[in-house]
Amino acid sequence: MRSIRVALFAATLASSALAAVSLAAEGTDAENASPIYGVTIPEGYRQWELIGPAQEAEPLNELRAVLGNPTAIKAYQSGTLPFPDGTILVKLAWKHVQSTEFEPASVPGAATTVQVMVKDSKRYPDSGGWGFGRFINGKPVDEAQHQTCFACHEARVKGHDFVFTRWAP
Amino acid sequence: MRSIRVALFAATLASSALAAVSLAAEGTDAENASPIYGVTIPEGYRQWELIGPAQEAEPLNELRAVLGNPTAIKAYQSGTLPFPDGTILVKLAWKHVQSTEFEPASVPGAATTVQVMVKDSKRYPDSGGWGFGRFINGKPVDEAQHQTCFACHEARVKGHDFVFTRWAP
Repeated sequence: MRSIRVALFAATLASSALAAVSLAAEGTDAENASPIYGVTIPEGYRQWELIGPAQEAEPLNELRAVLGNPTAIKAYQSGTLPFPDGTILVKLAWKHVQSTEFEPASVPGAATTVQVMVKDSKRYPDSGGWGFGRFINGKPVDEAQHQTCFACHEARVKGHDFVFTRWAP
Repeated sequence: MRSIRVALFAATLASSALAAVSLAAEGTDAENASPIYGVTIPEGYRQWELIGPAQEAEPLNELRAVLGNPTAIKAYQSGTLPFPDGTILVKLAWKHVQSTEFEPASVPGAATTVQVMVKDSKRYPDSGGWGFGRFINGKPVDEAQHQTCFACHEARVKGHDFVFTRWAP
């Protein structure tokens, strides 16, 4: 029992040290969090399940994919609306480029933005319960861009809890 | 100890019964396996990680997303070529339709095909180590369509171990 306790203590110490290193490498919270909302890029999001792909026409000309954390996936699959607190959606976007290997295909080019929606109805009562973050190269874009997020979602998809993306069947 | 053994035995029985029910519901292996290759749709693939989205022009006019099992993801992330035996890639495809909610966006419509590549160098020595399966509504398409798979992959992406899809960064 004593050896287990010692091992746990050592693991906790190591974990704290790693967290400190990670924070130093990634910058401060203020640098990484979106204006207005304080949303950050969630750890491990690239491993989350696919909700669906999308394409955005010119001038952006992007291929996109929206991934969701387990709370999001469960809500989509059960058709739960509004999405529960804890839901996180991440939209990855890339330039949409012609495949050099197959004429009819177009594929992801360079990554452009990562966009995040976090549901927390207590923290974000004035934006439908959602916090928004738009990131380029891992850093949030400016406040002016973040001021446009909710207005557009509210105007267009209020009936789907302010979320554009549907489950790709 | 005896109670653990009994519990394990009961769990095994229950698991076998569930497997039998599942097989009956999904049809026989012969009905579900692709011609030539005997590839089936892998269980749980919709939960696999995203490798990347793509778009296919007319006449197919599709949005697509390629997912990979853990062996595939590990190979992509480490740049391992050829892909190791056990790699499975699944391409989901949907009709590419205009969003009714946002003019510049287009989104997945009805599902069209699911296409599977399985790496097994011993089983598929004549097709670069890959078995192919193309499915519509969960059932494999005919032999003639499966005869075209490897020839196209060999002609165009031999240098990437016969795989078109790259990791979306």
